[in-house]
Amino acid sequence: MSNYSAPIRDMQFVMRELAGLDEVAQLPGNEEVSPDLVDAILEEADKFASGVLAPLNWTGDQEGAKWNDGAVATAPGWKEAYTQFAESGWTALAGDPNYGGQGLPKLLSTAVMEMWKSANMAFSLCPMLTTGAIEALLLRGTDEQKAMYLPKMISGEWTGTMNLTEPQAGSDLAAVRTKAEPQGDGTYKIFGQKIFITYGDHDMTDNIIHLVLARLPDAPEGVKGISLFVVPKFMVNANGSLGARNDVHCVSIEHKLGIHASPTCVLAFGDKGGAIGTLVGEPNRGLEYMFIMMNEARFAVGMEGLALSERAYQHALQYAKDRVQGTDAGVRGGPKVNILHHADVRRLLMNMKSKTEAMRALAYVVGAAFDKAHNHPDEAVRAQNQAFVDLMIPVVKGWCTENSIDVTSDGVQVHGGMGFIEETGAAQHFRDSRITTIYEGTTAIQANDLIGRKIARENGVTIAGVIKTMRAVEAELAAAGDAALGAIAKSLGAGVSALEEAVAYILATYSQDIKAASVGSVPFLKLLGIVAGGWQMGRAALVAKRKLEAGEGEASFYKTKIVTARFYADHVLAQASGLAYTIVNGAAGALELSEEQF
Amino acid sequence: MSNYSAPIRDMQFVMRELAGLDEVAQLPGNEEVSPDLVDAILEEADKFASGVLAPLNWTGDQEGAKWNDGAVATAPGWKEAYTQFAESGWTALAGDPNYGGQGLPKLLSTAVMEMWKSANMAFSLCPMLTTGAIEALLLRGTDEQKAMYLPKMISGEWTGTMNLTEPQAGSDLAAVRTKAEPQGDGTYKIFGQKIFITYGDHDMTDNIIHLVLARLPDAPEGVKGISLFVVPKFMVNANGSLGARNDVHCVSIEHKLGIHASPTCVLAFGDKGGAIGTLVGEPNRGLEYMFIMMNEARFAVGMEGLALSERAYQHALQYAKDRVQGTDAGVRGGPKVNILHHADVRRLLMNMKSKTEAMRALAYVVGAAFDKAHNHPDEAVRAQNQAFVDLMIPVVKGWCTENSIDVTSDGVQVHGGMGFIEETGAAQHFRDSRITTIYEGTTAIQANDLIGRKIARENGVTIAGVIKTMRAVEAELAAAGDAALGAIAKSLGAGVSALEEAVAYILATYSQDIKAASVGSVPFLKLLGIVAGGWQMGRAALVAKRKLEAGEGEASFYKTKIVTARFYADHVLAQASGLAYTIVNGAAGALELSEEQF
Repeated sequence: MSNYSAPIRDMQFVMRELAGLDEVAQLPGNEEVSPDLVDAILEEADKFASGVLAPLNWTGDQEGAKWNDGAVATAPGWKEAYTQFAESGWTALAGDPNYGGQGLPKLLSTAVMEMWKSANMAFSLCPMLTTGAIEALLLRGTDEQKAMYLPKMISGEWTGTMNLTEPQAGSDLAAVRTKAEPQGDGTYKIFGQKIFITYGDHDMTDNIIHLVLARLPDAPEGVKGISLFVVPKFMVNANGSLGARNDVHCVSIEHKLGIHASPTCVLAFGDKGGAIGTLVGEPNRGLEYMFIMMNEARFAVGMEGLALSERAYQHALQYAKDRVQGTDAGVRGGPKVNILHHADVRRLLMNMKSKTEAMRALAYVVGAAFDKAHNHPDEAVRAQNQAFVDLMIPVVKGWCTENSIDVTSDGVQVHGGMGFIEETGAAQHFRDSRITTIYEGTTAIQANDLIGRKIARENGVTIAGVIKTMRAVEAELAAAGDAALGAIAKSLGAGVSALEEAVAYILATYSQDIKAASVGSVPFLKLLGIVAGGWQMGRAALVAKRKLEAGEGEASFYKTKIVTARFYADHVLAQASGLAYTIVNGAAGALELSEEQF
Repeated sequence: MSNYSAPIRDMQFVMRELAGLDEVAQLPGNEEVSPDLVDAILEEADKFASGVLAPLNWTGDQEGAKWNDGAVATAPGWKEAYTQFAESGWTALAGDPNYGGQGLPKLLSTAVMEMWKSANMAFSLCPMLTTGAIEALLLRGTDEQKAMYLPKMISGEWTGTMNLTEPQAGSDLAAVRTKAEPQGDGTYKIFGQKIFITYGDHDMTDNIIHLVLARLPDAPEGVKGISLFVVPKFMVNANGSLGARNDVHCVSIEHKLGIHASPTCVLAFGDKGGAIGTLVGEPNRGLEYMFIMMNEARFAVGMEGLALSERAYQHALQYAKDRVQGTDAGVRGGPKVNILHHADVRRLLMNMKSKTEAMRALAYVVGAAFDKAHNHPDEAVRAQNQAFVDLMIPVVKGWCTENSIDVTSDGVQVHGGMGFIEETGAAQHFRDSRITTIYEGTTAIQANDLIGRKIARENGVTIAGVIKTMRAVEAELAAAGDAALGAIAKSLGAGVSALEEAVAYILATYSQDIKAASVGSVPFLKLLGIVAGGWQMGRAALVAKRKLEAGEGEASFYKTKIVTARFYADHVLAQASGLAYTIVNGAAGALELSEEQF
């Protein structure tokens, strides 16, 4: 078990100094976003995260969600926490003001989301999936659907789910078989089974609104024949009151490695005559709608990688400070010291800390770009930011989640033998992290999206612009006349060169030999994440240097920023050239064996 | 749940072609070791591993060991499997023939041990710890102690444990507080509490022989005041029958991330008047004895890293062959294919496969060196092999176990969402692997041993010899006139250069600035593991090339060897230069922060 308190100082630093909070606050619609308001929201969110959600994280893991006769009971304390969460307005933070939301910027909701996910990832999945369902309805729902569902979903009175996966249709949604039969009255009867439905049933709210992919009778084969439907657990009467129980039932929940408190449901639609739903948007365009929403969902899962890393870091750091073991290296018979004195424990903690800060910086910068892409008055600026968001979403999703497995594993390692004991709690973060590289699209799926749609299809235009910006930061670091900044410049420069080499390979190879390019796709995603993280750490070091020279702010905080950026450069950015080598040379060994030779 | 079958063909290849089975068979004492005998033993061991132990792996994980009122009940089927294991002679395989053992070579027992650990790691820990206790008694026990305990421990009738850790004394055994009070009759009363005692209690045998570190009343402080005692669960009468219950009791077992079926006990010694034990060897030299035995134990844990990787690979490969999802890349509307067609699934599987084969090759080569170090008639050859074993033990332990976390994680990833579901079984390997980098000395402890005792203290003599051998392999690969072997030569050469750079840094730094050297110790251990693995993969590729050119043996097997070695070169060896950069440059960022700045 561990405490959590939000890293508010670092969040403020990243929001203000790296992600451009001032600029975001000046966008149309953000008139009320003042620095004071932002700080007040961060502090209130921290209180809720650390005071209410964090203490339930371990108990929720141990108790888990329970299935009994078609209904799911959440872990003790869950329902009360959820009610308080919704009543405090947290579900509405970033919601559309037309339906009761507060409409606050993505940059701010990103920081707040990090807190929920650090404090209690299993809990956070319920509002996260609800947000996905809200987005789908906002995007393509009829006015009637919007009026019926959105206010109660944004207020948190009801929750939402996303029903995509079926046993034979995981990453390949073309294989979806669930059927939708038109009833002639504008409604459809849905028949089929969906698996891996997060919070597909629970006891925290009176109703659950399912968004479901299914096929109409005349639908074409494959991905172009999938439509999107909204199917409530309880029918909703015209006056908003609840009507009959709909024919969608949770027939079991999964026994998982982690996120035990988040019920992962098998949902049966139509076992008792048909689940009644209505069509969202146009027929056969369901998958297209899913893709539009996917940026948000993938970004949110990327945030889980960051958030679990932060939680594991806090946990391990506290242990390292408390645990006394051995003497300082080279000092036999000296006083016993805490393990933070030991070089490898420091290396592990600095690894955790520097990666976490790099992930936060990159994710918040992308969060701010979301805001600019949606709300900037200049269309060209909107387009430029959207392109940057599109490029970086698979990186935030894939790189942060892959990192989180390593970072939470490092957290276990810092604990030594105690890390393997479940009561310590370090292992929970490690277990929870393991789903993040899988759901909302595996890392390979992110990586294929990255090299295909986001790089090869536009011939590398957006990434070329990003690389140019990285080179400018490298030059500024090199010109600073500071040993630490010089070392960062060196590693960043080598990293950017590795990235350029890899981009050139992908552009040259993708259309000629997609399999060869794809072997390097996950290494490429990691490479871009590492270098983009180094770019942001370099920017942070430059800001810190300026602050220190100007004598502004807390010197210790800014000195720490420079040291952490340097560690990242020497320990993380250093991996870039090896990844580039693998991307450029690694296809032959990967593709040559026949199935029988494995 | 998954099946397991031993990779006998690869084991034979490594034993014969890389580790020098013929040479080992000609050592004094190995007169009966014929190729036929080796093959027969491998086949019998595979039958037991795949038929008896593997099916209990998953059920044991789910049931776990249970504590009730001071006694531990193992999982259903465990006792029967253990009885059969002992009766079949497996506990005696490598045991001293003077006490009923079969005295077979380490190289052979290594392959057999791999099978037990792949099939059921939690089970394998019981004979492994027993072997440690047997070694301690063989090494320093009195004739009376040997006669009393060894035959029944080697036959498997009784098991053994190692009692080192206490709550305040984990990695730092100087802090051991358990007391031993001499009774004047040659016996001692032991008082204290030990934690993390593997199979400290169980119901599989009538007696358990505990080896216990404790302090005599007049003992000096620190590591030089620790003695070793043997403390049986039941006293043993002169005629070998069991006497009174001794005052050592299991007061609880741990709730762990993995190896659920292996009871991890808190043992209370002396709560009811004192546990009776006898001294092993001389007073105050217990820790020294532990260090002598440590090579064996650390090697065995390294084997767990290899074994879990093999199991996870088999598991993931089977899933990849069975699971049909999507179409071939670039073939929209083509036939659905199994996921082995997808480039990143191949990359993951080749990663698993190539690392596993590299670990096996290195571990078996070290196993053969054990045999030569003990039994070669030429003292110089013995010394040379012992130096190689000493150098490589921390690498086998640290590198194989760190690898196993990544490889089992890759195994989960291949399964997609199913990997996160416990019933699939892939997650168990991942959970089980997570202890291996911690117990028998964390990776950092291995790495400090490596750079300090094994490299700096002898000024790099042994590793310089190893590097010379690696360069010879590189030259042979480069001269082979083959594209794949040329690519392997290139990566191996770059890896060896990185290793040389890192060794030079450690030799220059260790005595001047031990903390700076230590920051790079774990990266160095990984670097040496990666390059040593590449060296063995290069050797394997050379053998394969010769066999193919001579038209000997199964062409498909040897072609696969070359492809796998090439994959390893491009994907794993490629990481070497980044690690060297971190080792040489990484101290500043790691050591600069004060405790408050974290």
